[in-house]
Amino acid sequence: MKYCFGVDIGGTTVKMGLFQTDGVLLEKWEIPTRTENGGEMILPDVAKSISEVCEKRSLEKDAIEGIGIGVPAPVTEAGIVKNTANLGWGYREVKREMEELTNLKVCMGNDANVAALGEMWLGAGKGEENIVMVTLGTGVGGGVILNGRPLVGTNGAGGEIGHICVNETETKKCGCGNTGCLEQYASATGIARLAAEHLEEEKKDSLLRGQEKVDAKAVFDALKEGDGLAEDVVEEFGRYLGYALANIAVVVDPAVIVIGGGVSKAGEILLSYVEKNYMKRAFFANKEVKFKLAELGNDAGICGAAKLILE
Amino acid sequence: MKYCFGVDIGGTTVKMGLFQTDGVLLEKWEIPTRTENGGEMILPDVAKSISEVCEKRSLEKDAIEGIGIGVPAPVTEAGIVKNTANLGWGYREVKREMEELTNLKVCMGNDANVAALGEMWLGAGKGEENIVMVTLGTGVGGGVILNGRPLVGTNGAGGEIGHICVNETETKKCGCGNTGCLEQYASATGIARLAAEHLEEEKKDSLLRGQEKVDAKAVFDALKEGDGLAEDVVEEFGRYLGYALANIAVVVDPAVIVIGGGVSKAGEILLSYVEKNYMKRAFFANKEVKFKLAELGNDAGICGAAKLILE
Repeated sequence: MKYCFGVDIGGTTVKMGLFQTDGVLLEKWEIPTRTENGGEMILPDVAKSISEVCEKRSLEKDAIEGIGIGVPAPVTEAGIVKNTANLGWGYREVKREMEELTNLKVCMGNDANVAALGEMWLGAGKGEENIVMVTLGTGVGGGVILNGRPLVGTNGAGGEIGHICVNETETKKCGCGNTGCLEQYASATGIARLAAEHLEEEKKDSLLRGQEKVDAKAVFDALKEGDGLAEDVVEEFGRYLGYALANIAVVVDPAVIVIGGGVSKAGEILLSYVEKNYMKRAFFANKEVKFKLAELGNDAGICGAAKLILE
Repeated sequence: MKYCFGVDIGGTTVKMGLFQTDGVLLEKWEIPTRTENGGEMILPDVAKSISEVCEKRSLEKDAIEGIGIGVPAPVTEAGIVKNTANLGWGYREVKREMEELTNLKVCMGNDANVAALGEMWLGAGKGEENIVMVTLGTGVGGGVILNGRPLVGTNGAGGEIGHICVNETETKKCGCGNTGCLEQYASATGIARLAAEHLEEEKKDSLLRGQEKVDAKAVFDALKEGDGLAEDVVEEFGRYLGYALANIAVVVDPAVIVIGGGVSKAGEILLSYVEKNYMKRAFFANKEVKFKLAELGNDAGICGAAKLILE
């Protein structure tokens, strides 16, 4: 049996997993991400942790295919990171540094692309080669997998679907500086904003009125109770996301669209609003795409990172 | 020296080219496309023509890498065509049939994807691996090349960017059955329609008034004369196309966007209106994309088809 490591570097913790190359996850663990001093200890910490696991399990170097690493930043095909928002790194040749630290083969990817690859390998996209994954969290992340490989793009910015424009008439600004980005409507923050607007503009009675904190979860909970105003909010959310996904599908022609992230915990009811609005707008050749909820949760990153090495 | 053939099957003629594998086009010619009887003679005609050229030039089988074929229909990765609008073919295993007819390796692609590959290899995208090509003709075609290979997609419908939605409020129908598709504004037909609308709605005097036929060429010609109404039309065209391309770029992160097709004969002035509107909307990571006019004209198909075989 051969083995590989999947490493998912986040701003607070580094998640790590040891996999058999057939996809069995043998062990997973976390270490803190030490971002101080330009994040200089992050890679040595990861290398040390991997070395300890190899020793503990008496794994021979020859039995290890390599280490896949996902990072929260654009990464070029050569494994170079130019800047990070929350690791402390500036320009860094991560792949080369890590290969020197471990004497193992290293592959790199952007965290959103890597999570999509994980879902393709062991989760909701199992058995497929072309998937689009959208992660609805504080922001909206995205990853596109084509022929089993992440769409990296020229600047490592492929699959940044949170910043597709879905509303040309928007006047409020997105974090990216543009207006009308998908992220402004389909993220947890965006749904809370839509809810606040509907509560102000609609006269309808609602379970959401008087609640101290109307977040995305509260909206979906109210929807499940049959709340009409919550339904208006989710319908608007579904319209923007369905529209964006139809425009993405006409470019990349996926077999499966996977929806993950905190907001997706609302479950199948969320899918139904997205799929209905997708179908209104989809090009005829893209109407048979399957919609699925992500299955791997926080493990998607380590799974996809490990898969990077197996190509 | 090694050789390969590029074959571009259209509804009226089949364009063919003999290339050296280093990209030198040695000879190009055409034969009629015989679409009668379910198009049964198309492939035998192509095989015969290739065999004659091989004989004339005394080319040995061993020196020929293979035959690339572009067809005006979706094609799966396995080289299967399920239906065609204008070749007479229904379901057809083109790759297998052609390999049996010629004893040469055959690769297949959709004509729009293949034209994009041609521009990448020998035209406006030379030296790049990630390009988006949009062809502005009677309709709007598109091809996306990533890592030097066409984005084929699950149904062979990747890169169908003419059917990305750019106007949610449109009420007129596109040929595909949806409303608000890019093709309704950026094709030759679309530009003529925009011009007719502006002529009716605007009070401005214009060189276009009283012209018998106001087509896309007339609009760009008037623009070059400084005509204000023509500028309004081209501005609207540029707004829709720039917006669509910004949304495509945020998904595929190309290095170059190539604009071809009959409408692109308007030249650099067309690029300027598209690029200006693209920049208004582009995600920051995609602002350095280069805009170029297609360079290969009708040869893009045979060039890209030949390149299919060289991967």
